[in-house]
Amino acid sequence: KNHDQAQRKSCWYEEEIEDNLRWSFALNSILHTGATQYQDIQLLDTKPFGKALVIDGKLQSAEIDEFIYHECLVHPPLLRHPNPKNIFIMGGGEGSTAREILRHNTVAKLIMCDIDEEVVDFCKSYLVVNRQAFCDPRLELVINDARAELLSRVEKYDVIVGDLADPIEGGPCYQLYTKSFYESVVKPRLTTNGVFVTQAGPAGIFSHTEVFSCIYNTLKHVFKYVVPYSAHIPSYADTWGWVMASDSPLSLNAEEFDLRIKQRMTGENRFLDGTTFQSASTLSKAVRKSYVLSLLSFTSHFALPFFFFLGNDYVY
Amino acid sequence: KNHDQAQRKSCWYEEEIEDNLRWSFALNSILHTGATQYQDIQLLDTKPFGKALVIDGKLQSAEIDEFIYHECLVHPPLLRHPNPKNIFIMGGGEGSTAREILRHNTVAKLIMCDIDEEVVDFCKSYLVVNRQAFCDPRLELVINDARAELLSRVEKYDVIVGDLADPIEGGPCYQLYTKSFYESVVKPRLTTNGVFVTQAGPAGIFSHTEVFSCIYNTLKHVFKYVVPYSAHIPSYADTWGWVMASDSPLSLNAEEFDLRIKQRMTGENRFLDGTTFQSASTLSKAVRKSYVLSLLSFTSHFALPFFFFLGNDYVY
Amino acid sequence: KNHDQAQRKSCWYEEEIEDNLRWSFALNSILHTGATQYQDIQLLDTKPFGKALVIDGKLQSAEIDEFIYHECLVHPPLLRHPNPKNIFIMGGGEGSTAREILRHNTVAKLIMCDIDEEVVDFCKSYLVVNRQAFCDPRLELVINDARAELLSRVEKYDVIVGDLADPIEGGPCYQLYTKSFYESVVKPRLTTNGVFVTQAGPAGIFSHTEVFSCIYNTLKHVFKYVVPYSAHIPSYADTWGWVMASDSPLSLNAEEFDLRIKQRMTGENRFLDGTTFQSASTLSKAVRKSYVLSLLSFTSHFALPFFFFLGNDYVY
Amino acid sequence: KNHDQAQRKSCWYEEEIEDNLRWSFALNSILHTGATQYQDIQLLDTKPFGKALVIDGKLQSAEIDEFIYHECLVHPPLLRHPNPKNIFIMGGGEGSTAREILRHNTVAKLIMCDIDEEVVDFCKSYLVVNRQAFCDPRLELVINDARAELLSRVEKYDVIVGDLADPIEGGPCYQLYTKSFYESVVKPRLTTNGVFVTQAGPAGIFSHTEVFSCIYNTLKHVFKYVVPYSAHIPSYADTWGWVMASDSPLSLNAEEFDLRIKQRMTGENRFLDGTTFQSASTLSKAVRKSYVLSLLSFTSHFALPFFFFLGNDYVY
Repeated sequence: KNHDQAQRKSCWYEEEIEDNLRWSFALNSILHTGATQYQDIQLLDTKPFGKALVIDGKLQSAEIDEFIYHECLVHPPLLRHPNPKNIFIMGGGEGSTAREILRHNTVAKLIMCDIDEEVVDFCKSYLVVNRQAFCDPRLELVINDARAELLSRVEKYDVIVGDLADPIEGGPCYQLYTKSFYESVVKPRLTTNGVFVTQAGPAGIFSHTEVFSCIYNTLKHVFKYVVPYSAHIPSYADTWGWVMASDSPLSLNAEEFDLRIKQRMTGENRFLDGTTFQSASTLSKAVRKSYVLSLLSFTSHFALPFFFFLGNDYVY
Repeated sequence: KNHDQAQRKSCWYEEEIEDNLRWSFALNSILHTGATQYQDIQLLDTKPFGKALVIDGKLQSAEIDEFIYHECLVHPPLLRHPNPKNIFIMGGGEGSTAREILRHNTVAKLIMCDIDEEVVDFCKSYLVVNRQAFCDPRLELVINDARAELLSRVEKYDVIVGDLADPIEGGPCYQLYTKSFYESVVKPRLTTNGVFVTQAGPAGIFSHTEVFSCIYNTLKHVFKYVVPYSAHIPSYADTWGWVMASDSPLSLNAEEFDLRIKQRMTGENRFLDGTTFQSASTLSKAVRKSYVLSLLSFTSHFALPFFFFLGNDYVY
Repeated sequence: KNHDQAQRKSCWYEEEIEDNLRWSFALNSILHTGATQYQDIQLLDTKPFGKALVIDGKLQSAEIDEFIYHECLVHPPLLRHPNPKNIFIMGGGEGSTAREILRHNTVAKLIMCDIDEEVVDFCKSYLVVNRQAFCDPRLELVINDARAELLSRVEKYDVIVGDLADPIEGGPCYQLYTKSFYESVVKPRLTTNGVFVTQAGPAGIFSHTEVFSCIYNTLKHVFKYVVPYSAHIPSYADTWGWVMASDSPLSLNAEEFDLRIKQRMTGENRFLDGTTFQSASTLSKAVRKSYVLSLLSFTSHFALPFFFFLGNDYVY
Repeated sequence: KNHDQAQRKSCWYEEEIEDNLRWSFALNSILHTGATQYQDIQLLDTKPFGKALVIDGKLQSAEIDEFIYHECLVHPPLLRHPNPKNIFIMGGGEGSTAREILRHNTVAKLIMCDIDEEVVDFCKSYLVVNRQAFCDPRLELVINDARAELLSRVEKYDVIVGDLADPIEGGPCYQLYTKSFYESVVKPRLTTNGVFVTQAGPAGIFSHTEVFSCIYNTLKHVFKYVVPYSAHIPSYADTWGWVMASDSPLSLNAEEFDLRIKQRMTGENRFLDGTTFQSASTLSKAVRKSYVLSLLSFTSHFALPFFFFLGNDYVY
């Protein structure tokens, strides 16, 4: 019968991923809808990408491919660190970042600090895939502003993970991407070999100029070693970016990368291995040329990024 | 906060109401989804029109304005009849047609004959507004093909109501709109003053040529008195049509119409009164001119409607 | 071949006709795009409705059914007037209102006063159907604000036609729908038997509360006789409204209406005749009940309509 | 003024890139529409991606990022070949593939063989960026089926480029992706060091199973050395794939790649350099694991791909 056809097309989730560009998924159902003090939240069951978490009308993660985002955010910094024990997540209320971190058997203590308790509760209730992570005794959940929380703490972390919304001017997270935040809040809380990593927004051949290049440049002013990398995430309709930074060298060849996965992690990665990371951290000519030339960085003093003088040592 | 805006736009129900013309409602939720032996069925919660029943990707009725359709289908024939006691509904599984009929205190017995038991059960469960009707002791629910059921019965009805899908060629209901069906199945089951009424598809200035004119013309060949009428239904994005037919005169002025409403009906109509019906049964010049000239009628022998010779007595 | 199918669906015009409700037409082409000092303007070739004029993202008129709007706006007031010679259009830059007025052989002089010269030029160039009207020697085109123009003139008009955008609060036309404007600007420029008519926005069973009821109520405070009427316009996906007002009685039965059409007009109406107008000026119970109760009217002193005391004479 | 906003959203190009997944671009205009003997063709001016060529409702190439597709299709095989002089394009009527090939100063003769003369003429007329290429004296344009043309020729080519629609079962190009076609038509027309390259459809983490893996596996049965590679193309909303194949080794390190670009090519690449190609030809774990396991290949004897026995030598 022809009924599938008719029904399949009738309900759609639609997002304007950028001005003039729309991305739409056929829907099976709208599982849950809620509004917190900070944001609106929906859990959708979509036909092309499975369950999808939508916050304020923006897709956060889709069941079918969130593993790409979360493996990329978590494993490169944890694998590069010689022995990551204490970890701090800024944001991450969805629970998937914690889930990936807890796969590392070196991890003894994990702080997840999200400002929106209701989102955390929503995800705890509905995202079955992260239930085990939420119950892991190594996880300590803190409801607070990440900046305030980091400032109030004295212990140091081996890895600090930024799993926050993009630094949109005037948005709630802008201050958590600035040079002064990295210098005076993040860096003091990292151990000697500590690694900072942050999601870094779209990193496509055109879209990398939105925030990715700026985040990279900002971190270059604060850390000695900075590694940008990217991967295409189908449900985002774009290539996504992450940047990892440290004052210790971050190099790790493909074989060592694979070896540490085997030694330290439970379960198997679906996206990342040493070879994949090599490819992900090799940006295309178009992006490389563009961000070397782009001298923009985020500061806390100016609402708009501004041009920054960079000395001769600025070489990618 | 701006969240409403964002969320409001993210989920949509979308229907191609005709080729090249799309009609979309923002969604609150998808309440229920099901598939029966005959059709797919969904109950949606839409922002502009409230709960909406969708069958095979076509909107059947919306909470906010289904009263227009059902008041128009039911009350003109029942009010024109001197004393309607026994009523037969072909189709009508949604329950709203029964609900309106049962508001007439003259009605002693109502048969609702729908072929799809699962749709009836679905509506019984989820359409709260019709629950009382489904429980009314005067209602007898029969699961059967309307034609077979009418042929198997010997009693006669004061009003027979056609609440069926449009007569699309090759569609399941085509045979229930033909001249031979009306002559040999419907008419023999009507009492002396009996009235037949049917929904008659879109009746807009352009869309009336799809099936409305044909249904009118077909009924003109079978009954002495035929009254077409129409009203705009917002959720259908079109003017809709009904045709009422009888071998007894159907005239009733606005005052008598209103008087009978007062005398015979419980509750108050939201759409129809005598004046409204006068307007609804006065078609615009564009439609009147078109359907007088259109000589098409539905027959059971030909898949396509064909031209029919009409004598001098063909005067609207 | 299956190519038509594919191509047919690829390009769409889309309008949010109200919050949460979208209306989309498949496109053949985008004929012209322009921006004037006041507004953006597009001429589209749509599959379902032919050429469509879109101003600021809102459909103004579509080739296939603009005749309904313009016949309804123009002919009832001109036919009701005993001998309409001098006519004034506020707005109307599209030219269709002028075209319909110029079909009346009683008309000797027609002022069309639109504020946006570039829109007028755009329509003159591209709307072939109105070319003849733009060249008619009886037409005088004035580029000015309608209020300023009427205030600067001393002669009186038999019919003044309001063909302006809806009175949206804060919008450019709001002041042209207020009680004080009607009293001190329009009325002084009408001859003794003069008739004022205005388009009055959506008049559907739900949408009539947006501006239609208010315009009707406002005019009731200024003129002795006020006649609201409405008709479904397919391309607007709604029933539309007009209100006609005068200090002389406006009644005209269907036969006289038809007779005057024959005597005074060239060409044939496609939508309106006496019978159609009777139906159009008989509002449904739902709308009648609603606007009698609604006591809102537009004033120039308050941004928001407010409740107004209405004496015993307020009878529809 | 707020007009931009309104207008920007009104016209959209919409494509269902796969079942249940829609991709929409705001439109400036529809520049040209045509229908050839074989296909429908449109040239659109889109807001996010510039001019876009659409064939049978499928985006072919967009002004803003077609360079990614065409640089990837052309330069890896031509740069790997020691001295590419004679080149043959199967398809490529758009002209962009020819344009990139003609940037290589080693090229003496280029055959572009497309079946659809009208598409070629359309692109010649409207795609300004390729005008020079169409006029290059080294280019010989042939209107013919690529298979028939290759069979009829006796000379051999250094590089044969497949720039054809995906091998959809029952589609016009399926036969041009089969093992027998590669063996008996393509290979005999390659010089000793000859390289064959073909576009290979979507190569995303999920979409690579549609045709990319099959094309790779098919070529593995015919050539000694096969190199699959991929890159994200924003306007396609996916990662795209190409496969290069030869009986001579295809390795070339990043420095040599860059050197040959400098020595042999005019103009500068926007996307590709040695480093970028290294990354592009390193597939992610997810895709690598999947296609090694996938044993599907295209054959001419079976409409559906079938499982093929592969010996021990099958190692990527």
